[in-house]
Amino acid sequence: MKSRAAVAFGPGQPLQIVEVDVEPPKAGEVLIKVTHSGVCHTDAFTLSGDDPEGVFPAILGHEGAGIVIEVGEGVTSVQPGDHVIPLYTAECGECLFCKSNKTNLCVSVRATQGKGVMPDGTTRFSYNGEPIYHYMGCSTFSEYTVVAEVSLAKINPEANHEQVCLLGCGVTTGIGAVHNTAKVQEGDSVAVFGLGGIGLAVVQGARQAKAGRIIVVDMNPEKFELAKEFGATDFLNPKDYDKPIQQVIVEMTGWGVDHSFECIGNVNVMRSALECAHRGWGQSVIIGVAGAGQEISTRPFQLVTGRKWLGTAFGGVKGRSQLPKMVEDAMKGDIQLEPFVTHTMPLDEINHAFDLMHEGKSIRSVIHF
Amino acid sequence: MKSRAAVAFGPGQPLQIVEVDVEPPKAGEVLIKVTHSGVCHTDAFTLSGDDPEGVFPAILGHEGAGIVIEVGEGVTSVQPGDHVIPLYTAECGECLFCKSNKTNLCVSVRATQGKGVMPDGTTRFSYNGEPIYHYMGCSTFSEYTVVAEVSLAKINPEANHEQVCLLGCGVTTGIGAVHNTAKVQEGDSVAVFGLGGIGLAVVQGARQAKAGRIIVVDMNPEKFELAKEFGATDFLNPKDYDKPIQQVIVEMTGWGVDHSFECIGNVNVMRSALECAHRGWGQSVIIGVAGAGQEISTRPFQLVTGRKWLGTAFGGVKGRSQLPKMVEDAMKGDIQLEPFVTHTMPLDEINHAFDLMHEGKSIRSVIHF
Repeated sequence: MKSRAAVAFGPGQPLQIVEVDVEPPKAGEVLIKVTHSGVCHTDAFTLSGDDPEGVFPAILGHEGAGIVIEVGEGVTSVQPGDHVIPLYTAECGECLFCKSNKTNLCVSVRATQGKGVMPDGTTRFSYNGEPIYHYMGCSTFSEYTVVAEVSLAKINPEANHEQVCLLGCGVTTGIGAVHNTAKVQEGDSVAVFGLGGIGLAVVQGARQAKAGRIIVVDMNPEKFELAKEFGATDFLNPKDYDKPIQQVIVEMTGWGVDHSFECIGNVNVMRSALECAHRGWGQSVIIGVAGAGQEISTRPFQLVTGRKWLGTAFGGVKGRSQLPKMVEDAMKGDIQLEPFVTHTMPLDEINHAFDLMHEGKSIRSVIHF
Repeated sequence: MKSRAAVAFGPGQPLQIVEVDVEPPKAGEVLIKVTHSGVCHTDAFTLSGDDPEGVFPAILGHEGAGIVIEVGEGVTSVQPGDHVIPLYTAECGECLFCKSNKTNLCVSVRATQGKGVMPDGTTRFSYNGEPIYHYMGCSTFSEYTVVAEVSLAKINPEANHEQVCLLGCGVTTGIGAVHNTAKVQEGDSVAVFGLGGIGLAVVQGARQAKAGRIIVVDMNPEKFELAKEFGATDFLNPKDYDKPIQQVIVEMTGWGVDHSFECIGNVNVMRSALECAHRGWGQSVIIGVAGAGQEISTRPFQLVTGRKWLGTAFGGVKGRSQLPKMVEDAMKGDIQLEPFVTHTMPLDEINHAFDLMHEGKSIRSVIHF
């Protein structure tokens, strides 16, 4: 079948809106009509060419919501008409990782997903007879996409897709990092570095957890208003200080914060985030994705004196078993999604969504088809 | 009073055995007759001049056992005749850290201890009228030493000092790191980097925890025999491989080990230890002390895919409340100390103990007075 899609033909190039060919779902696969897709920094990261796993040409997009159109052989957990969120972190329930109950990092489709292909090693997209690669197992910048059954969360059909598509990545990652990875407790102090969609979701998660002080750090003070609305208590612009921001935070808190979160993907900020963690027990969670080959560093003394350095992917959330509940929470208002959606636009204007993001003018632009 | 002591007059110089003057204990202090002291790599590290906190001239030694001779004003928890182990990690029970129940990193005497002085800012040692500095709040290379009351664990007077002095540092650090920091569970896999006293204690702790596979890594295969006796199951000499040792460990285990421990103080090994940790949940504990200014580094991807980087000091053990029980465990044979004591010698031969350590010929040399 034909599908309108925004194709990344090469690194650093604007996306091109073209009509691609989509093959029907094979065994264990599902064809979806994407209704909405958020545009996330990770899409921009891959498009820039910095992502070592990035392959081109590809259909990006990994933060979507849609409706099942057709299921391949053997698919039992969803059927045509079901409302779904595609998952870049699958949940097969069968692998060592799923069975461990210690992590959400399912490996069932990991190897092929990283190469931009379906589990059988081929693509379902093509343009003028040439293959177009998949992206993060989702490719939500296409009106029709094919994903693995294990990469689909079935959600309440009453949910507002324009909002809950954000649970496909950023908001879930931020809120999940607070509850699943850091396990923030009532009264704990928190520092959040970077107030994009993920950082703001961390703030929201911290307030859910009844954190005490919630310190936010961003070079763009325009972000502080929404952060305050979500529960932030202290606002720091590193440009206002002539010393490292971790030192500012340690001084203002006495010994640092109980939990810090890096929501940018900047290895220097990752260091700041670790070093503002409380001596003795503070922990720092890396959420942002750094460029290829970049490394984090610190003095080991920081760890020997009790700090912990962690990371998280998709907020530690197991998509198929946990995401439906988060959708319900959003419908009840326990997770606020509306403020994240600062812009909506049709697929044709998707490059404008990237511009808004780079200019710091949007939290999330949501594309509709 | 006069006391025989091994004094470090300057970095890189052999210790000199001289008779120093020791002032009586002031308020909150205790005079101890040291009966035995282990010689630890940390002593050698400070003596080398690489320790940024190292001050000279000083009396080193921090792994001792002794008997209380005299107590200063207000001291109530010990009295003359009590058998004690000096603690370089104090436990005041009153500070933010002691009260947190999250860490053993008491701060009561931290600032002055780091400068080589007693809590009132002065030293109790002098030689020819010139002050000699304290070391790690212990200075067990002196027959008589003065320590803060909060830096003393009172132990069973029946304990064998020649052995339990090792609970003042290395053995407690290694065993504690397994139980308190990593919290190794039955069946978990473990990798131990460096088979000095701490590494061997980690092996022993891992066996206590009923770990499954216990992989040990050392460039000196002579260490493997004792490691095997303590419970190690796999033995790796990095010299035998032409690829990074973390890769060897990941390949031999499938996805890495549940817990790894760096027991050397080498920042490159710290990286190897992190990177051999299991995807999804593996954690790596830094125990070794790195040289001044040295930094650890890795790709943040290692953490984002579920590894945790931790550190520990004194194995997370609260000395005054937990060490007496460990002494009892050693007396019952639940902690084996005898195999660690490969050499004993009088104070006069202490420089030979450092030589044996540097040559890799000793696990622990214990000095007696």
